[in-house]
Amino acid sequence: MDDDRQFLKHAIAEARTGWEEGGVPIGAALVHRGELLATGRNRRVQLGSAIRHGETDCLENAGRQPARVYRESVLYTTLSPCYMCAGTAVLYGIPRIVVGENRSFQASEDWLRSHGITVDVVDDDECRELMERMMRERPEVWAEDIGEEA
Amino acid sequence: MDDDRQFLKHAIAEARTGWEEGGVPIGAALVHRGELLATGRNRRVQLGSAIRHGETDCLENAGRQPARVYRESVLYTTLSPCYMCAGTAVLYGIPRIVVGENRSFQASEDWLRSHGITVDVVDDDECRELMERMMRERPEVWAEDIGEEA
Repeated sequence: MDDDRQFLKHAIAEARTGWEEGGVPIGAALVHRGELLATGRNRRVQLGSAIRHGETDCLENAGRQPARVYRESVLYTTLSPCYMCAGTAVLYGIPRIVVGENRSFQASEDWLRSHGITVDVVDDDECRELMERMMRERPEVWAEDIGEEA
Repeated sequence: MDDDRQFLKHAIAEARTGWEEGGVPIGAALVHRGELLATGRNRRVQLGSAIRHGETDCLENAGRQPARVYRESVLYTTLSPCYMCAGTAVLYGIPRIVVGENRSFQASEDWLRSHGITVDVVDDDECRELMERMMRERPEVWAEDIGEEA
């Protein structure tokens, strides 16, 4: 659990960078057998992107990997995954996801577990505060990011 | 159905381009109220990408769109969507997906339907031939693309 907190910090640092860039403050980290492979952050605003959520940006930054690597990895994310990011984890058979918080948003956790993926929720204050500020100050972008009308 | 065939042709053209570039021959098109918004193709090989499948590349090429647009759109894809692309359609509430073929690969169709998404399968010869050639001539890349060991 100390390791989890440590790796989650990398995801939180990405989320903070995203917020400072004017974006959606969600970050992620991919860890293979205890080694940090890549980090990423939501870049909807920064890149004008519909598919760069924290988790997908992180996997993109990790580059092409053989199936084996994903299957031995843990995905850290500051916010509970949307279905796009959850589906990406299912596609690649990532066995465990550590979620910073799921009070601001939760959609896919039961479905992930039904695919045999372990989902551990840390309920981290910093992750929650970032999202609360996002929803208060940039509600239109947040709505867009989860496919809802503002 | 004539319209479907017509829009599917755009997806097939993208798939052919992808094959000629040395990549995975899967293409997609996003159509909003009868108007072509964007096309895209799998670019795993071309961009070294883990997340640019035909459907996600197409949505990325469409740029940031309000929720309303996705909810009035049809996604055309030459091959039945993997869970990443299916999850993306669920996230954005795309109500209908037209699938070129699902004999080469099928994972998400029941799940998409359980989310209220209409999935229509054309069973197109050209789409199937492209994938058969892919699996015969580039089996390692295909395995990688769906998170499997070759």
